[in-house]
Amino acid sequence: MDFTPSPRAREYQEKLLAFMDEHVYPAEPVYAAQMAESGNPNFHPPVVEELKAEAKKRGLWNLFHPHRDEAWGSPGLSNTDYAPLCEIMGRSPQLAPEATNCNAPDTGNMEVLQLFGTAEQKETWLKPMLAGEVSSAFAMTEPGVASSDATNVRLRMTADGDHYVLNGRKWFASNTLHPHCRVLIVMGKTDAGAPVHRQQSMMVVPLDTPGVTVVRGLPVFGYLDREGHAEIVFEDVRVPKTALLAGEGDGFMISQARLGPGRIHHCMRAIGMAERALDLLITRAQSRVTFGEPVASRANIQDWIAESRIEIEMVRLLTMKTAWLMDTVGNRAARTEIAAIKVAAPQVALKVIDRAIQVHGAGGLTQDFPLAQFYAYARTLRLADGPDEVHKRTIARMELRRLAPATERQG
Amino acid sequence: MDFTPSPRAREYQEKLLAFMDEHVYPAEPVYAAQMAESGNPNFHPPVVEELKAEAKKRGLWNLFHPHRDEAWGSPGLSNTDYAPLCEIMGRSPQLAPEATNCNAPDTGNMEVLQLFGTAEQKETWLKPMLAGEVSSAFAMTEPGVASSDATNVRLRMTADGDHYVLNGRKWFASNTLHPHCRVLIVMGKTDAGAPVHRQQSMMVVPLDTPGVTVVRGLPVFGYLDREGHAEIVFEDVRVPKTALLAGEGDGFMISQARLGPGRIHHCMRAIGMAERALDLLITRAQSRVTFGEPVASRANIQDWIAESRIEIEMVRLLTMKTAWLMDTVGNRAARTEIAAIKVAAPQVALKVIDRAIQVHGAGGLTQDFPLAQFYAYARTLRLADGPDEVHKRTIARMELRRLAPATERQG
Amino acid sequence: MDFTPSPRAREYQEKLLAFMDEHVYPAEPVYAAQMAESGNPNFHPPVVEELKAEAKKRGLWNLFHPHRDEAWGSPGLSNTDYAPLCEIMGRSPQLAPEATNCNAPDTGNMEVLQLFGTAEQKETWLKPMLAGEVSSAFAMTEPGVASSDATNVRLRMTADGDHYVLNGRKWFASNTLHPHCRVLIVMGKTDAGAPVHRQQSMMVVPLDTPGVTVVRGLPVFGYLDREGHAEIVFEDVRVPKTALLAGEGDGFMISQARLGPGRIHHCMRAIGMAERALDLLITRAQSRVTFGEPVASRANIQDWIAESRIEIEMVRLLTMKTAWLMDTVGNRAARTEIAAIKVAAPQVALKVIDRAIQVHGAGGLTQDFPLAQFYAYARTLRLADGPDEVHKRTIARMELRRLAPATERQG
Amino acid sequence: MDFTPSPRAREYQEKLLAFMDEHVYPAEPVYAAQMAESGNPNFHPPVVEELKAEAKKRGLWNLFHPHRDEAWGSPGLSNTDYAPLCEIMGRSPQLAPEATNCNAPDTGNMEVLQLFGTAEQKETWLKPMLAGEVSSAFAMTEPGVASSDATNVRLRMTADGDHYVLNGRKWFASNTLHPHCRVLIVMGKTDAGAPVHRQQSMMVVPLDTPGVTVVRGLPVFGYLDREGHAEIVFEDVRVPKTALLAGEGDGFMISQARLGPGRIHHCMRAIGMAERALDLLITRAQSRVTFGEPVASRANIQDWIAESRIEIEMVRLLTMKTAWLMDTVGNRAARTEIAAIKVAAPQVALKVIDRAIQVHGAGGLTQDFPLAQFYAYARTLRLADGPDEVHKRTIARMELRRLAPATERQG
Repeated sequence: MDFTPSPRAREYQEKLLAFMDEHVYPAEPVYAAQMAESGNPNFHPPVVEELKAEAKKRGLWNLFHPHRDEAWGSPGLSNTDYAPLCEIMGRSPQLAPEATNCNAPDTGNMEVLQLFGTAEQKETWLKPMLAGEVSSAFAMTEPGVASSDATNVRLRMTADGDHYVLNGRKWFASNTLHPHCRVLIVMGKTDAGAPVHRQQSMMVVPLDTPGVTVVRGLPVFGYLDREGHAEIVFEDVRVPKTALLAGEGDGFMISQARLGPGRIHHCMRAIGMAERALDLLITRAQSRVTFGEPVASRANIQDWIAESRIEIEMVRLLTMKTAWLMDTVGNRAARTEIAAIKVAAPQVALKVIDRAIQVHGAGGLTQDFPLAQFYAYARTLRLADGPDEVHKRTIARMELRRLAPATERQG
Repeated sequence: MDFTPSPRAREYQEKLLAFMDEHVYPAEPVYAAQMAESGNPNFHPPVVEELKAEAKKRGLWNLFHPHRDEAWGSPGLSNTDYAPLCEIMGRSPQLAPEATNCNAPDTGNMEVLQLFGTAEQKETWLKPMLAGEVSSAFAMTEPGVASSDATNVRLRMTADGDHYVLNGRKWFASNTLHPHCRVLIVMGKTDAGAPVHRQQSMMVVPLDTPGVTVVRGLPVFGYLDREGHAEIVFEDVRVPKTALLAGEGDGFMISQARLGPGRIHHCMRAIGMAERALDLLITRAQSRVTFGEPVASRANIQDWIAESRIEIEMVRLLTMKTAWLMDTVGNRAARTEIAAIKVAAPQVALKVIDRAIQVHGAGGLTQDFPLAQFYAYARTLRLADGPDEVHKRTIARMELRRLAPATERQG
Repeated sequence: MDFTPSPRAREYQEKLLAFMDEHVYPAEPVYAAQMAESGNPNFHPPVVEELKAEAKKRGLWNLFHPHRDEAWGSPGLSNTDYAPLCEIMGRSPQLAPEATNCNAPDTGNMEVLQLFGTAEQKETWLKPMLAGEVSSAFAMTEPGVASSDATNVRLRMTADGDHYVLNGRKWFASNTLHPHCRVLIVMGKTDAGAPVHRQQSMMVVPLDTPGVTVVRGLPVFGYLDREGHAEIVFEDVRVPKTALLAGEGDGFMISQARLGPGRIHHCMRAIGMAERALDLLITRAQSRVTFGEPVASRANIQDWIAESRIEIEMVRLLTMKTAWLMDTVGNRAARTEIAAIKVAAPQVALKVIDRAIQVHGAGGLTQDFPLAQFYAYARTLRLADGPDEVHKRTIARMELRRLAPATERQG
Repeated sequence: MDFTPSPRAREYQEKLLAFMDEHVYPAEPVYAAQMAESGNPNFHPPVVEELKAEAKKRGLWNLFHPHRDEAWGSPGLSNTDYAPLCEIMGRSPQLAPEATNCNAPDTGNMEVLQLFGTAEQKETWLKPMLAGEVSSAFAMTEPGVASSDATNVRLRMTADGDHYVLNGRKWFASNTLHPHCRVLIVMGKTDAGAPVHRQQSMMVVPLDTPGVTVVRGLPVFGYLDREGHAEIVFEDVRVPKTALLAGEGDGFMISQARLGPGRIHHCMRAIGMAERALDLLITRAQSRVTFGEPVASRANIQDWIAESRIEIEMVRLLTMKTAWLMDTVGNRAARTEIAAIKVAAPQVALKVIDRAIQVHGAGGLTQDFPLAQFYAYARTLRLADGPDEVHKRTIARMELRRLAPATERQG
């Protein structure tokens, strides 16, 4: 188990840290002002494009992409090498990932297109996405059913000649309201009678296809996130059969393939948020005085600081181990760990952020500090890609199998 | 210790429950639609006035008021009798308290005016407030300092002839952005050199007094609450000396007097939110199916339900005991309990609401259910009127005194 | 809901408190010395008999018994009135309950004999038990199966003429190793083919019946409790049919009847232990100095004190409410509460005791303080009479039924 | 950060695992029987010597020792390489560490003698200890004071010619009651007027020195551990000045040097206990049936399994990182991590063991399973070498320094 970053990774870390200090953090108040001024929660503020240009110039572009490609600017980092970069970006989650073209769900969509897309799909969609010109959304979750169980998917993809006709409803399709969003990757059922994990297919659906209606953007707590979590109705949406990713019935398989690296990204960003929250907590505790003493001198606050440090260290190591396992033995062998970090990282982040809010008093709940929004984001992670309970179930089943009586293990 | 509701209290419970079922719950979607249509987070939707009229007609008005007064419609209930009504209102916290003229901070302000106001203040402000025509805010908390320590108050009230001149800044003055808000009760320092708890005074300041500027409304977890949590600048604000409540230096004393009943109200409303969240959790768990079974059949969800029930029962009893103590031995003798419920009730509410969110999946974070907003409200309660840590300190000091060596106890 | 103690109850509280101060606490070191000197974990130290004599003299005898009877000395207190006495006794759990003839499982056994015993059983067993001359055990739990599910009971009671023949194995039959123990109340199956809750019967079995073999005493966390938790083998044990309590198949019903009051006793004693642990914590924190300050001045320890106070208050109120419900509407209507306190009281006690241990340092783990033994006792309560999980399940099922769709509720 | 075990380490792991399977686990019931038969809690059962002989034969001897020495049989493993062996031994904590001559406090004492002992001390004490012939204890903690604050040490070491005279009292000197124990390493004060961390000295004191009186063995919970936790009185104990380790005033420095590796050992053993507890939990849950289903099929138990797995993985990684830091940058640079694992590992172990107890029902509290004794051992770790609160304070102070205003950082 070796988490030592490669020399290249260390170089990217240093470059990214400099970019954060010199451009991203200073851009935060600019961003807030541009958003406020626009009065439009889905406004695309100019500062983001400036950051993108700067990141590209500095060679901090498409860092997530596992393939090294000069044209794309992607360095081809391993999960182990990329993970710490995600943590750094997570310290400014509204700016850094997009600035470096490393924001979800575009990253996952680009991976899927890379792995399963046709030449035409790559040319039409992947290329402008890698260039940071086009954004995309992932339409998987549905209202009214528990989407963590793939058999619950209701959106129908009915073959009709050389087309499929899509009917159904999705929600929490993040990024749909981004002004650059042009395309959806949609999960649906092509064959409800097939074996459980062969019923689903995935298709590439341009956002302006007739019959696709964005009903509304969903808030998270009270936040209408800039990129938007959309509810989308599909009504007799006709797409050519070439819209299919991989083959019919491959939907579940693709969703599994997509999942591993995305977990690392989400969890490391959550850890980055937790680190920033801890820094804010400490700084506040040092400056704030009650009953004649700085809050930082109180043993209960010191306990919070220590517990936060311990919890962050532990969950970071687990995430790094998971990245390393994915690099060395693959996603399948890392299933327990991939499930484990999905449960552990958001919970650590929530605990640390909540303590930081408490030390900030009422101000911690407002936009004067990034804490309440971090909290909302981290809370969402306990549900996105399946709730904690589904992941714990996965882990438990593997543990139970590990010690199952020999007779059952054979079954 | 007798929590049995009086026959009158039981009658009010029944009337209030009927009002909730027949008017308040049905008004919730109407309210949401009117707010959405207005596009103004501080809009005063017509349905609220309709509810107020209906409540008044049903004799459900000024229920909080400890004095029985036919003109006001207030029944003069004890804390023990009023507390369960607060819980019922808490199930629809955006509508029921205002509908019955029992919403904070108006209730506390009315109590303060009743106890400490001059005849003129009562005529000018208390009367239209009891009639539900005028709203008010309480300007106590300040940005930049820990307001839980009253010595930190920075707003200066400088005597100048027969006037005071106010300079300073307040925030989280809830209700200020309510279209009906006309008046502020302001805490400030009249004498920074006086003994610690005699430095502060409270004054009644019309919102339109020159020099009073509402800078902004503060969001809580992204929510711009309708009533508004305002940041207010006071710049050379001149008020006549008759604006003083009680006497110079009585500010801290008034804030203590105000505090006890307010705690009961807040905590019982939080318990009402928790009860509603538990109902939502159960209902959702019964209808949602994963991996072939309703979620409600899973032992982990059943554990959540049972733990929620246990925690709610316990904290309700503690709050009821506190109300009973206030009625029988007074606020001072109930200090430990008043501090205890302030810590315990929001934490129980947060736990139950968070579980309910988890069972609702991503939808639980949106406005499709009241849960995320309940969470934001309950989280605020861990800071409002002092953070948990200050209340725990209060309790600990009383416990330490209880067992202090005889020598110290004498000191 | 009225928890006010009756004047008689208050009188008993005062008398009991005086007895504790004047006799029980002073007897603790004597007891420890007599036990240590004996070298026998099941020794019956003389000081216990002295305390019994004193308690009897003071009219503090058979306080648990719901019937008022001058001959027995039992005052016939309600659950509401008796519960606070249990809490007081719980502060010295090794001495006070036995001193007042209120120790489990004798109390439960006496109730069962009172309710379901024949005249002969009452004369032979109940009478000397009420006099404090004879002790008893309750043989219900079995090794190798989960005894919280009554259908799992394996001990067979086979009718043979006018006898039953008992075969099976029990464990955790507390009190069996008490030198005064003469009789067992045994749960077994008379008819494995009957409906689930009619398969079990209970019988009164003298400890010296041939075929009854006490195999060993079971330790709890290393403690070989004086009264002993015995593993007992029943091998062709012949008892006359008159040994039956109530009728064949009534075993489950009796165990339910027995259960309610026992819960109150256990939980209130646990609360008494928690109160004493909190007192010890505070006293220790005031006397112990680290890094130049008494531990009691540290905010983390103050938080522990405050949280302990809050938790104890809440769970005491819930237990009192349960007692009151049992007195007013009966055990069946109080099922949720009876299950709730069984979960909540031991957990509060464990938390408080654990904090107290931590403040005592290594000494807290030894017999120099009662804390570690309190912990072991409270931990046992999370399993005795069914593990937490069974009780949570009970509560959840009642909550689910409360909100079940109308169609299901009818079913 | 590279935790990959070296090829030699992997070889030792395999050899140790085989030794566990072939000898240690099978010896457990033999050990229990020999102890029970002896009736003496401090008996040295023959099976331990058999295991020692076997371990020596297999080259599994003095594995802890950082120096490679053929005479001693010590392989000279790094902390990173030794740590996983500690975890394996921790699965049978009463046998495996002693069998391989790797048990505390002998390991720490041997390290101290190696680093700071005179030639004579090494010949007299270290040599037979390395051979497994002689045992030792470490007399540091004192009753009546908080020993986590080194300035609290009360035992006086007064120079008197070429001797020191020791007066004072120690307790929790583990191993003192081991029949092989011959020598104590004693911490005391040689100069109460010196700077805070130069007041203490350490000396090597034969157990049979006149004036050394073992007063009693202290139980932990109810366990009288075989090796014994002794309370020892020192009354005018004269030792020659050559008894001094390093120099006068070096006591605190030595205790710090001793501390780092000991932490790794303790924590990894705790993790080993947790792993075994989890295995027991799973196995039990698979075999136990309630209400018609194996307990392992219940979602709450599955949650416990998953949470246990996650927590164990995280704390193991943190402990491995700490070992690696100690190997690469030294104890001082690893202070935060050394403090962190001391807090985290026992708490994880306690959580997992407690869950396992719960799944085992009442049996889990007895000696039929190792769980209750594991719990007592892990609970002790929260106090040994300083309570959690002291270690959290250490971490917090380092975090506060990390972000201190520049002016303070210079100070």
